[in-house]
Amino acid sequence: MPRFVHPPAQDISLAGVLGALSDPMRLKILKKLLERRDGTLSCSAAAPSPEMAKSTISHHFRVLRDAGLIRTTKQGVENLNCVRWDEVNARFPGLLKAIMKFQP
Amino acid sequence: MPRFVHPPAQDISLAGVLGALSDPMRLKILKKLLERRDGTLSCSAAAPSPEMAKSTISHHFRVLRDAGLIRTTKQGVENLNCVRWDEVNARFPGLLKAIMKFQP
Repeated sequence: MPRFVHPPAQDISLAGVLGALSDPMRLKILKKLLERRDGTLSCSAAAPSPEMAKSTISHHFRVLRDAGLIRTTKQGVENLNCVRWDEVNARFPGLLKAIMKFQP
Repeated sequence: MPRFVHPPAQDISLAGVLGALSDPMRLKILKKLLERRDGTLSCSAAAPSPEMAKSTISHHFRVLRDAGLIRTTKQGVENLNCVRWDEVNARFPGLLKAIMKFQP
């Protein structure tokens, strides 16, 4: 049984994507992950700040995951995350790029 | 004293814009207003459906206004709304266009 639930690509919605990115912390997380687009990052490595509570980090990752923006897989004791770039981009071509270029 | 409060253009934030558009009803409202970019629409005329409660319509317009996406002016008994297209576009070039092209 999978540990994480990911919506299928066709269920990724415009409102859902925008909602998940309507938080400065989540924009920062996605930016960090995008800088590693060819790879993955653990939740702690992708956290916007080292002081952030683990529960807060988990919440942000869940929101991003539920919106279909990231995929999380458990590897050993770590949860590794990557952006579902190709799937989101196939559904909404150019959207993520247009949004993320304004995230410093 | 003005009846409506509009954030100055420099206070329009990326997260705020995305949050305001993270609701299918507000995406519909903005789409309707954009089809009248050269003009304005009353709240009821821009409502996504005629059955929507007035309080719900007001809420959606307030969220859009607070995010800096629309400007509301009182004219007689009507509140007229227009998209702050040029201001939002100056702050986040191409963002609104990239988002709204996916709103049917």
